[in-house]
Amino acid sequence: MNAVASLPRPGAVPRAVPPAQPPQPRLGLLGTGTVGAAFVARCAQLRGQGVALPEFAWLSNSRALAGCDPGAAGEVLQRLRAAPARGGGFPPWVESEGLRRGDVIVDASDSDVVASWHSEWLLRGIHVATANKLGAGSDSVRAQAIVRACSEGGGRYGDAATVGAGLPLLRSIRALVAGGDRIHAIEGVLSGSLAWLFDRHDASTPFADLVRAACAAGYAEPDPRIDLSGEDVRRKLLILARAAGFAIEPREVVVESLLPPALATADAADVDARLGMLDTPLRERHSAAARRGDTLAYVGRVDAAGARAELRALDAAHPLRAGAGTDNRVAIWSDRYHARPLLIQGPGAGAAVTAAALLDDVLAITRGCSRGSALDDVHRQATA
Amino acid sequence: MNAVASLPRPGAVPRAVPPAQPPQPRLGLLGTGTVGAAFVARCAQLRGQGVALPEFAWLSNSRALAGCDPGAAGEVLQRLRAAPARGGGFPPWVESEGLRRGDVIVDASDSDVVASWHSEWLLRGIHVATANKLGAGSDSVRAQAIVRACSEGGGRYGDAATVGAGLPLLRSIRALVAGGDRIHAIEGVLSGSLAWLFDRHDASTPFADLVRAACAAGYAEPDPRIDLSGEDVRRKLLILARAAGFAIEPREVVVESLLPPALATADAADVDARLGMLDTPLRERHSAAARRGDTLAYVGRVDAAGARAELRALDAAHPLRAGAGTDNRVAIWSDRYHARPLLIQGPGAGAAVTAAALLDDVLAITRGCSRGSALDDVHRQATA
Repeated sequence: MNAVASLPRPGAVPRAVPPAQPPQPRLGLLGTGTVGAAFVARCAQLRGQGVALPEFAWLSNSRALAGCDPGAAGEVLQRLRAAPARGGGFPPWVESEGLRRGDVIVDASDSDVVASWHSEWLLRGIHVATANKLGAGSDSVRAQAIVRACSEGGGRYGDAATVGAGLPLLRSIRALVAGGDRIHAIEGVLSGSLAWLFDRHDASTPFADLVRAACAAGYAEPDPRIDLSGEDVRRKLLILARAAGFAIEPREVVVESLLPPALATADAADVDARLGMLDTPLRERHSAAARRGDTLAYVGRVDAAGARAELRALDAAHPLRAGAGTDNRVAIWSDRYHARPLLIQGPGAGAAVTAAALLDDVLAITRGCSRGSALDDVHRQATA
Repeated sequence: MNAVASLPRPGAVPRAVPPAQPPQPRLGLLGTGTVGAAFVARCAQLRGQGVALPEFAWLSNSRALAGCDPGAAGEVLQRLRAAPARGGGFPPWVESEGLRRGDVIVDASDSDVVASWHSEWLLRGIHVATANKLGAGSDSVRAQAIVRACSEGGGRYGDAATVGAGLPLLRSIRALVAGGDRIHAIEGVLSGSLAWLFDRHDASTPFADLVRAACAAGYAEPDPRIDLSGEDVRRKLLILARAAGFAIEPREVVVESLLPPALATADAADVDARLGMLDTPLRERHSAAARRGDTLAYVGRVDAAGARAELRALDAAHPLRAGAGTDNRVAIWSDRYHARPLLIQGPGAGAAVTAAALLDDVLAITRGCSRGSALDDVHRQATA
């Protein structure tokens, strides 16, 4: 399905006499899961603190789209969450709602179709703040289209929420590159759920029980296989790699899946019953590491030789050895940081920090260019 | 001495017909020590890589000022380093060289007099990139004058090099505040030299020997008492506190000096002979900590209750426990990061990383507002 093909061409948009005052930017929210709900809640909280924010024009999920009066976003969100499933396609976000240049789309979905629209919006001067990794974390044609669209259309792309839930990773990598540094390698614990699982995991606890606890706490996806397969890490590693200037395609990232084939291919309804298949192999990996004083972590690495994501045993001196809970941590080696890396660490999973990162980007966009952020750097890369 | 009083008032600057093209910004470098020399070297290196940079107009140290033809900065620097000491005041940077709006001053000195000029330059639309902590890390009157001058005069202030030698600390704190977060506390190992000393220190090595090694390696100041007194940490803690929104004066930071009185008050020529006075007390502190499995670190902390800098014993779970070499590490707790902090860690001492941070800020300034950086946030704070 190519949703983009159904859009009217930019030339078809009528160009009336420009109004004396440009219209206020408006917010559109896509995705009403835990991140979308936390985003709506954080908007209400910051408004209560007196922070100026655009109003919601509409909210949408894969089942419905609803316009939104000022102050009613919470109610509309609840209504959309309760909407019945519908077949066939997505609501026609653009045509029906007449998005304008300067409006801000917040993509809190995990939809590949929505991600395929990012560049189209940017090209029309509509800004995008996204937690959805399938824009810049998919194939390079799509990632490059996003960079080009920012440059040509003037829309700004806020992607701080896609890796590390807003930890200052992308911004710091882009700042190093802008300052003339060459990035040698990036290595990171990039999955908050896998960080939490291996932080808790020891010989005494069946791994399957930990997975169930991570799902219940909202650290892992409802289908934990997205995390356990390493696919989530693949996308994040691609986003980091591109910020650092490494040209790489999804298929070139060597990813170790933690899933035995019978679990990987199971129907969703059978996943829980088969989680126990993880226990023995991971207990053995843990014991082998512990005998050497090492700890296990699922680590992604990219350097000039390529990219891989895998379960690794880290010795006591490894820079990624620290951290607890859902902490993401990323080590960056560059010309400047060649002997010891720059390390950034902090909570990297959960709806609250992800929503806060989305709102950071919305604020940076709506406050304009005097508010420097990662957004500017994407735009710059396109024009360099 | 109030150097500012001798400046001509802005109204006295003749306003000619504006040229068709604004003149190219130029660089002025103050300070020709290890950081200034590394800055000149890094400029040459990046120019060699094709990075567009302003040309040096002049270089200066406390002994002399010299104009500079394009490409001659390295020679001029060597000449200035060899200049004989002179008495009485500093060269008249502004009047004699006719600094223009848009020019960039790089302050690689540690001069209080130079720092007292920062706000004057900014008010005239002259940008400042500084490794000198005495601008924003001194009393609040001066710090506020800098913020106000950015807003009123349009000069931009690059301070990434003042704390952590360019680690993304100030930028990250300002981004959190801009996103509506309230900072609860900041705790950090902020001195690269003290980090290196306590990383190396164990019962087997006299502390004095380590101090001599740190000076020889360029990690500590030539007079190591600036580091050992905690005064360097006081300044950095003030800069971090102000970025986070804590109003605090230098005298309110409770600072533990590691210096016994007879060492603190010694003539510079007697310092080396008296360094051995550090050995016994610090060996005892180390042993007491080691018995509990703790490690020693000199930690600065600021929160709503106040600010202090002191030698502390950190247990294995403390977020500042990791790091090696000259690594600075800073933990930031906020509304968003309340259970686990955001942690940023990396090499925080040495001329090379400090010079790179200065040049990052120069690039951000000269590339203008599409290149977001900490600079924008200082400016924003003034206008919020």
